[in-house]
Amino acid sequence: MDARYWSRKARSLKPYVAGEQPVRPYIKLNTNENPYPPSPEVAKAVDQAAPNLRLYPPSDGGPFREAAARLHGLSQEEILCTNGSDEGLAFCYLAFFDPDRPVRTLRLSYSFYPVWASLFGIELDYVDLEEDLAPDVRGMAGGGSVMLANPNAPTGIALGEEALRTIIESTAGVCVIDEAYADFGAVSALPWIRDYPNLVVVRTLSKSYSLAGARTGYICANPDLLSALRAVRDSFNSYPVDLLSAAAAAAALNDQAWHQETCGRIVGTRDRVLRELRAMGFEVPESSANFVFMRCVQPDASALYGSLRAAGILVRHFPDGPAPDYLRVTIGTDEQMDVFLETVRDILKIH
Amino acid sequence: MDARYWSRKARSLKPYVAGEQPVRPYIKLNTNENPYPPSPEVAKAVDQAAPNLRLYPPSDGGPFREAAARLHGLSQEEILCTNGSDEGLAFCYLAFFDPDRPVRTLRLSYSFYPVWASLFGIELDYVDLEEDLAPDVRGMAGGGSVMLANPNAPTGIALGEEALRTIIESTAGVCVIDEAYADFGAVSALPWIRDYPNLVVVRTLSKSYSLAGARTGYICANPDLLSALRAVRDSFNSYPVDLLSAAAAAAALNDQAWHQETCGRIVGTRDRVLRELRAMGFEVPESSANFVFMRCVQPDASALYGSLRAAGILVRHFPDGPAPDYLRVTIGTDEQMDVFLETVRDILKIH
Repeated sequence: MDARYWSRKARSLKPYVAGEQPVRPYIKLNTNENPYPPSPEVAKAVDQAAPNLRLYPPSDGGPFREAAARLHGLSQEEILCTNGSDEGLAFCYLAFFDPDRPVRTLRLSYSFYPVWASLFGIELDYVDLEEDLAPDVRGMAGGGSVMLANPNAPTGIALGEEALRTIIESTAGVCVIDEAYADFGAVSALPWIRDYPNLVVVRTLSKSYSLAGARTGYICANPDLLSALRAVRDSFNSYPVDLLSAAAAAAALNDQAWHQETCGRIVGTRDRVLRELRAMGFEVPESSANFVFMRCVQPDASALYGSLRAAGILVRHFPDGPAPDYLRVTIGTDEQMDVFLETVRDILKIH
Repeated sequence: MDARYWSRKARSLKPYVAGEQPVRPYIKLNTNENPYPPSPEVAKAVDQAAPNLRLYPPSDGGPFREAAARLHGLSQEEILCTNGSDEGLAFCYLAFFDPDRPVRTLRLSYSFYPVWASLFGIELDYVDLEEDLAPDVRGMAGGGSVMLANPNAPTGIALGEEALRTIIESTAGVCVIDEAYADFGAVSALPWIRDYPNLVVVRTLSKSYSLAGARTGYICANPDLLSALRAVRDSFNSYPVDLLSAAAAAAALNDQAWHQETCGRIVGTRDRVLRELRAMGFEVPESSANFVFMRCVQPDASALYGSLRAAGILVRHFPDGPAPDYLRVTIGTDEQMDVFLETVRDILKIH
């Protein structure tokens, strides 16, 4: 690779590595996608929007922002729509974090956090997890600013209201809470954005609304914080959410019955999978997300990952992270998880 | 506005201001959208993609990248798909420009260039236009790196092959050529990306492919340069182009007959509008884009903008830029432009 024309910044980057998108038909439990399709209203909304593709989309998300505001009982000035929550989180770094004020985050969390930090020259102040993988609330409290996934990924462990309020109230700067997985059972900080001048909540439709393909997320915060995010957005890309995705997102948010039904099914399957894995002897922390995080000793995580893959099942292993002896397993349909559990039993020779 | 929680960066920004997206039905000649719909294949492709929305899109644009590679006779390693060319241009700043090496650009050009410079801490070295608004080729040559729109916006004036090669060959660092409007009649530098180790060409489907609503663009460069862009993309957003937009873009690129037919119509209308405006006494530089840039003396640009708006026609005025006495007028259908010309005649009382 000839990097002579690269910026110093580009040479310094260690990009995020997303879960594999396989070509052959694996049972795909590696990127936390929803096994159920989105609301049937989504395809209709996309169809209706398509004839307007020659025009720029509304820069603020249009029907998408309206639907999010209605759902949460917020004003539109409290919501910014983004190209997936990844873009929203990146905007938070630019809008709220300064290079000379380290941002507190958990050492084991979404592995994109350090990547954005490096891209934007922000320092992270890592807080170790507790012995049982739970976030260290006292360690996270009292910092300059905070980037916190709740529930945490890849552990699935969620903090409750008291812990969250302690962290938000004791943080001098902005507290960003990434609620990518909150719809699967965590307490949401979203209803508190009017209580705290420094609270930012980031959401995605990729998981609980089955819209990973649409790349839609949104940020909720008071209008003063939102204005900083809008300034960043308008300094990066005036129209980050395209017309079709905005239509899809609005339709998905507007069909809460579908959302609750599919999330409920996933939660039921997750709790069963968790029990069965524990019954096989795996250490698995309580999960409030659409995945479980299982500790693998014999065989080790790398070996189990390989055996599952050979059997046609993709899960996620982070061999270079702080928890190399764990696998993260997305919750699929009951049928998929039965195949998964049966395959694990085969590999472990438990019958 | 309470900015106490904003980063210093956010406080320093002067965001880009996009053209108005009106609510009432104006004749909309203000944001360079295409007056013709995209290829009929686009809606079909979107329809076919919609059932897969629960899964993440291919991170590299999938069918979109394949179609672009085929169209230009390039390998897929020479193409990066982005969320509009705006995102692609932003990535170029991060991948190729350093804070201590000023980037040469035209003083009158796409008004987003200085916004990205400010966001990413890059210095711009402005080169004035010639008397007749043409780019100063000698002024642009010999710099550290270059950001150049060809044809230039908002003038519509394009540089030819010799001028482009002079600039590319004499630039020590990377030369980014933004070809947003090139399909309406400019020489494209795209066929030369294998000739020059420092050439990056940025394209969009928003204008010539009638896909402003889909937010799709792509960057062409040799694999060494592309790798820097990929590192930046993967440090910002793993999947910047959503599934539906990728499908739409692929279908649009694959229907070259439609593309040539609609571009040809716009070019014909543009040349007629240009002649008629000149016949009315306006100074209008030759345009290779889907807009014309007209100098307004009596009435002045601000007054003519207001009178057109009152008559239901939106055009673009940049009162705070370096050419406040010009209006930029997007080329619509023949019927729309007849209304525009007739309205200008009414305002000028030429009959």
